[in-house]
Amino acid sequence: MSKQAGLPVLGQDDDAVCCAPMVREPLGEEAAAELSRMFKALSDPVRLRLLSLIASHEGGEACVCDLTGPFDVSQPTISHHLKVLRDAGLVDSERRGTWVYYWVLPEALAKLSALLQIPAGPAKALT
Amino acid sequence: MSKQAGLPVLGQDDDAVCCAPMVREPLGEEAAAELSRMFKALSDPVRLRLLSLIASHEGGEACVCDLTGPFDVSQPTISHHLKVLRDAGLVDSERRGTWVYYWVLPEALAKLSALLQIPAGPAKALT
Repeated sequence: MSKQAGLPVLGQDDDAVCCAPMVREPLGEEAAAELSRMFKALSDPVRLRLLSLIASHEGGEACVCDLTGPFDVSQPTISHHLKVLRDAGLVDSERRGTWVYYWVLPEALAKLSALLQIPAGPAKALT
Repeated sequence: MSKQAGLPVLGQDDDAVCCAPMVREPLGEEAAAELSRMFKALSDPVRLRLLSLIASHEGGEACVCDLTGPFDVSQPTISHHLKVLRDAGLVDSERRGTWVYYWVLPEALAKLSALLQIPAGPAKALT
């Protein structure tokens, strides 16, 4: 039904970049360009809270009507932030009747999470 | 010797924020403000590559002399990007003789990684 159907096998069908942990290998230019766009979408506190509200919402998706209450910003501002998250490939959305519903794209979050993952020990040997 | 000594027990002595996965609970305002500053530091492709070069460098630390070669930008620009990473709490540095050495702060990367972590199943029940 949505683009998400059939997806959640993480790391497969990934025709773009990454994601070995960056402690294991340095990023190439292309991967860094793509990933930095995703991080840019997370670089605003309202967008970060919006994403977390969507991600943690019951059923894994949130109506835009659930997303305006917690913020001291206007509806158009919320809509703009949601568009930025969507353009960055972090969420997807679908209109159903009156409302637009949003859900996170788990493979995108997992990609960033894997990139930043730290193995158990310290990254730097203590001296 | 460095601030990192004794640190790598992740999640302890964390007097600031987080990090439950955002799919589990929404972020508060304060946490979102702090985390968005860290993501902002990752929102530039050169900074992201610099961080990955430091993180993956042999021994877990890199001399600033190792970090200029791979980039088509000036030394002052590299220095500026390193300062942004440092101010965001993602790396620390120390001068030794002629050169400054950088290493990642693993608890910072682990915090962001944990935040974005996705449990095994799909975030959204497929409909």
